[in-house]
Amino acid sequence: MPSPTGAYRTAGVDIDAADLAKDQIAARVAATHNASVLRGIGLFGGFFRAPRSDGDVVLVSSADSVGTKVLIAALLRRHVGIGIDLVNHCVNDILACGARPLFFLDYYATPQLDPAALHQVIEGLTHACQEAGCALVGGETAQLPGIYQPGSYDVAGFIVGAVDEQQIIDGARIRENDIIIGLRSDGLHTNGFTLARAALGLDENADDVRKQLDREPAGSDETLGELLLRPHRSYLAAISPLLELGIVKGMAHITGGGIAGNVGRIIPEGLVAEIDLDSWSPNPIFRLIQERGSIPAPEMYSVFNMGIGFVVIVNPDDATHVLTGSSDACVIGRIAASSDQTKVRLAGLKDG
Amino acid sequence: MPSPTGAYRTAGVDIDAADLAKDQIAARVAATHNASVLRGIGLFGGFFRAPRSDGDVVLVSSADSVGTKVLIAALLRRHVGIGIDLVNHCVNDILACGARPLFFLDYYATPQLDPAALHQVIEGLTHACQEAGCALVGGETAQLPGIYQPGSYDVAGFIVGAVDEQQIIDGARIRENDIIIGLRSDGLHTNGFTLARAALGLDENADDVRKQLDREPAGSDETLGELLLRPHRSYLAAISPLLELGIVKGMAHITGGGIAGNVGRIIPEGLVAEIDLDSWSPNPIFRLIQERGSIPAPEMYSVFNMGIGFVVIVNPDDATHVLTGSSDACVIGRIAASSDQTKVRLAGLKDG
Repeated sequence: MPSPTGAYRTAGVDIDAADLAKDQIAARVAATHNASVLRGIGLFGGFFRAPRSDGDVVLVSSADSVGTKVLIAALLRRHVGIGIDLVNHCVNDILACGARPLFFLDYYATPQLDPAALHQVIEGLTHACQEAGCALVGGETAQLPGIYQPGSYDVAGFIVGAVDEQQIIDGARIRENDIIIGLRSDGLHTNGFTLARAALGLDENADDVRKQLDREPAGSDETLGELLLRPHRSYLAAISPLLELGIVKGMAHITGGGIAGNVGRIIPEGLVAEIDLDSWSPNPIFRLIQERGSIPAPEMYSVFNMGIGFVVIVNPDDATHVLTGSSDACVIGRIAASSDQTKVRLAGLKDG
Repeated sequence: MPSPTGAYRTAGVDIDAADLAKDQIAARVAATHNASVLRGIGLFGGFFRAPRSDGDVVLVSSADSVGTKVLIAALLRRHVGIGIDLVNHCVNDILACGARPLFFLDYYATPQLDPAALHQVIEGLTHACQEAGCALVGGETAQLPGIYQPGSYDVAGFIVGAVDEQQIIDGARIRENDIIIGLRSDGLHTNGFTLARAALGLDENADDVRKQLDREPAGSDETLGELLLRPHRSYLAAISPLLELGIVKGMAHITGGGIAGNVGRIIPEGLVAEIDLDSWSPNPIFRLIQERGSIPAPEMYSVFNMGIGFVVIVNPDDATHVLTGSSDACVIGRIAASSDQTKVRLAGLKDG
């Protein structure tokens, strides 16, 4: 049968371009596969051998996207980092539960397929999947004119990992006097871009925005675009040895909601995480956003990670393991008894 | 700490509205949970107990969206079916591999959160998950001004199911003379909406489009909007007994690419699926789209399901099991030997 896609292309969906893109990315995808992947891609589902289990293994899953960071990437035509962002965001989410990645699927939607952008995203996705030992087993590429703004796209990721039930980390073992250790972020990661763009005036005329993104802010040897597009860090390598040691009592991935919003999710009743904001300095990009946007400090800390991308809570005796294992880890607080419902207190927060 | 979301709201992201929506949907989500779900929602990942396995169980996963059908739903403010569409599309995809659903995650993105629309989508999602015995264990709701068109949204679904390795259905056992049986669709399901909207003139002025959607096409007692929004059928109930019997050799879920594009994915080398297009009548909605858009028949069959939503291939001796099990199943073709690379031949296809 011929493939007469004339009317469909006129209506805005180019099946041939989509098929071509599929062929070209197949090799990259195959490079993420391991012995657990059956039958490759092309069937109606992705096949991944389930971990051996007597009922003691738990699958941990998460869905996420990169937010409006993709708008900065689109302006600069630099999309590799977006793929990395997507995978690492998901990897960190299930890592915070104690789980290691098994497999990943992506959803990429755009009004009109730009094969170059898609290839870059897939390049980043597959690179980050390989780094995480995670197989990319499927995905969907959708051309949806009318839903998305011209020239934009969105990308969502879906990860499944595994953890032995006895080794799930959910904060339940956290006790008074435990130590809260922060691991540095590489910038905004994937949260708060709508506020950052508004504060920096990056939601206006595209040409003006591009010029601003190509400039280096005072004191930086990277352009604003480079600072904003720095990929979301994966904490898998830093955290895995600690999971092997069995010393981790709670972890939080600092995404939307900031330190308080995310650390608060794992603090048991009757306890509070006391965080000392003077124990680290936020990356300069956060000061720039705060100043340019005249954003009050409390809002900055409730939207951005402010320099701490991942939090680990351990017994005081075990803190050295964490601090010596990661050069960019530092003690940022401790667990205290609490008589109210407050889960996190930020000490040193200035209202201005 | 206060929750000072003023600047973020001005920039287009309303955290309070998102939090409120989260609380209100929690009960619906919990209703999809079974004994395999651990710890509910609210942590960094969804927890689902892995099936017991000695290395013989395979996890089958799929990612999908509903396409520009959401634009019709948005115009008519009828979103429940979109949630059903999303789940059933994913359920059918892994079903075509022989897998039953375990758990599901969703990704919902919009420029500005409309809680009523989100609630309707979740109502549909959770209803369809319950029907499929599938737990909704997580998801992400993103407010992304600048990526999406005002008033629109997109929704993607991710499903994980399981099948014993020995019971994977991938078409490998298909032989010459096997019978191809089609199960009826309920209309477009979730494919071809961009072409359908263009053909029916539904991508113009919103008020005019709404009027047209509220009219009943000649010979129909349903409005055009109702015909277009009919939810994607789930074939799980019809197919499960056949899987128990062990008689299914190949299955195809007819989505983008139509009958030829999807049946072709499971036909082994040296064989061809010969489909007789005169063996069923496409639903009237397809004739309407074809006539109004002056779309050639070959393109109609390469974009739409044309009335057949799912295809089952069995040994001739087993065909009665399928035909008596589903009142809307009919023989649509047979498997023949082939000396070329053509995987599917559509007999009775008129060029006009």
